[in-house]
Amino acid sequence: MPQQTDRLVSLVEGYLAELALTPELGSLEAPMRHALGGKRVRPLLCLATGDAVGATPERLLPAAAAVELVHSFSLVHDDLPSLDDDRERRGAPSVWAQFGEATAILAGDALLAEAMRLALTYPTTAVARELIEATLAMIGGQQLDLEGSAELERLHALKTGALFTASVMCGVWAAEVPVSEHGPWRAFAGELGLLFQIVDDILDGDGYVLEVGEERARRLADEAAERARTRLAEIDADTSLLAEIVDGLAVRTA
Amino acid sequence: MPQQTDRLVSLVEGYLAELALTPELGSLEAPMRHALGGKRVRPLLCLATGDAVGATPERLLPAAAAVELVHSFSLVHDDLPSLDDDRERRGAPSVWAQFGEATAILAGDALLAEAMRLALTYPTTAVARELIEATLAMIGGQQLDLEGSAELERLHALKTGALFTASVMCGVWAAEVPVSEHGPWRAFAGELGLLFQIVDDILDGDGYVLEVGEERARRLADEAAERARTRLAEIDADTSLLAEIVDGLAVRTA
Repeated sequence: MPQQTDRLVSLVEGYLAELALTPELGSLEAPMRHALGGKRVRPLLCLATGDAVGATPERLLPAAAAVELVHSFSLVHDDLPSLDDDRERRGAPSVWAQFGEATAILAGDALLAEAMRLALTYPTTAVARELIEATLAMIGGQQLDLEGSAELERLHALKTGALFTASVMCGVWAAEVPVSEHGPWRAFAGELGLLFQIVDDILDGDGYVLEVGEERARRLADEAAERARTRLAEIDADTSLLAEIVDGLAVRTA
Repeated sequence: MPQQTDRLVSLVEGYLAELALTPELGSLEAPMRHALGGKRVRPLLCLATGDAVGATPERLLPAAAAVELVHSFSLVHDDLPSLDDDRERRGAPSVWAQFGEATAILAGDALLAEAMRLALTYPTTAVARELIEATLAMIGGQQLDLEGSAELERLHALKTGALFTASVMCGVWAAEVPVSEHGPWRAFAGELGLLFQIVDDILDGDGYVLEVGEERARRLADEAAERARTRLAEIDADTSLLAEIVDGLAVRTA
């Protein structure tokens, strides 16, 4: 099974490496590509969802890449001096530290716009709608963060959970799963977003950990993982790869 | 005829004033609404296009508002200290001067995302696709500007012309004009974008004026207006309102 996730991740890497950006973006290509590092968890979830319902990865790749571009957009803007003022990201200079603040603002804008262009290559508006709603939630979450909101659970649900949920649901829409079957998928996607968010908080020592303590946060994560597995089992599809990913997310340490 | 454009502009004002923003955006609502000033030229063009083909304004309003939100997004980000460093916009403090830099970055992001959400309320992906392609062109144009590019004509075509063209074409798609009839519409929209761009340069004393001188720029504007009228006449629809708007744009002084 690790081989299968490795194969899907390398498909994502190849797709992103060869992705033709809009030519009019010109010299923004370098900062945009610089921003596109990462572990590809979100696009992997999107492809694994497609895999479960028998859709080929090729059909899912534009949606998977769109989710990753939205994630990168949010990091590029969040790192800016007036926001989190982070000079480093994944052991390298952040986009603004490397290319300047103005270019980082425009590169972030361009990543979001390219994400939408990719999501709009499907015949349905639903992939793009799912993604833009998660994006709006993320932006709202970042504003709560900026205000120093004490509503940590809500803040992290918006900043982190929403895009995880969208990673699965964009896969569901792109694979053209009938709407009558979306219920259990959306329930699973919600639990998965919550799981990722709690584990993220445990690893960063914030959010849930500050609200309920590490021990209770760990228990909440286990419960979310359990509910995610239960929801998965309710789905009439071969969800074994997704179940592996849930197990991996539940015990991840980075 | 001015009454008719006044009526359409007041429909846009009413729609924008009552537009329910995504609740998760929270306190970003104030800076977003602050950013939404302006003369509504772009949404007017969108509604006048719908009017020409017999579509009700109600059907066109989400597309018209989406175009205006993209325009506002670009102004909010362009005004930022690291870009144009403009403290004023339309006689009031710019968004960053009033609400701070971080909130202005997020409010700009949110305006773009809300624009896409509105464009995605149509059954077709085409409205959103038209709009995102113009947005990508604008971002590329802003990057050229940042680099101090000497290609002023291309820079202004990207920064200004593209969204004008999209204002008409979003109306065409939203009104469900058959694709077989798009040719003359797109030709008209292109000339209109060029016209607005040249007149803008004449009023600002840059772009075309710096490249070819004011007298020649004025002649190029007249020629673009003439071609726009010719293109309009080729369209099998009641384009009298659009013809009035072209006349107004050709002689505008602000």
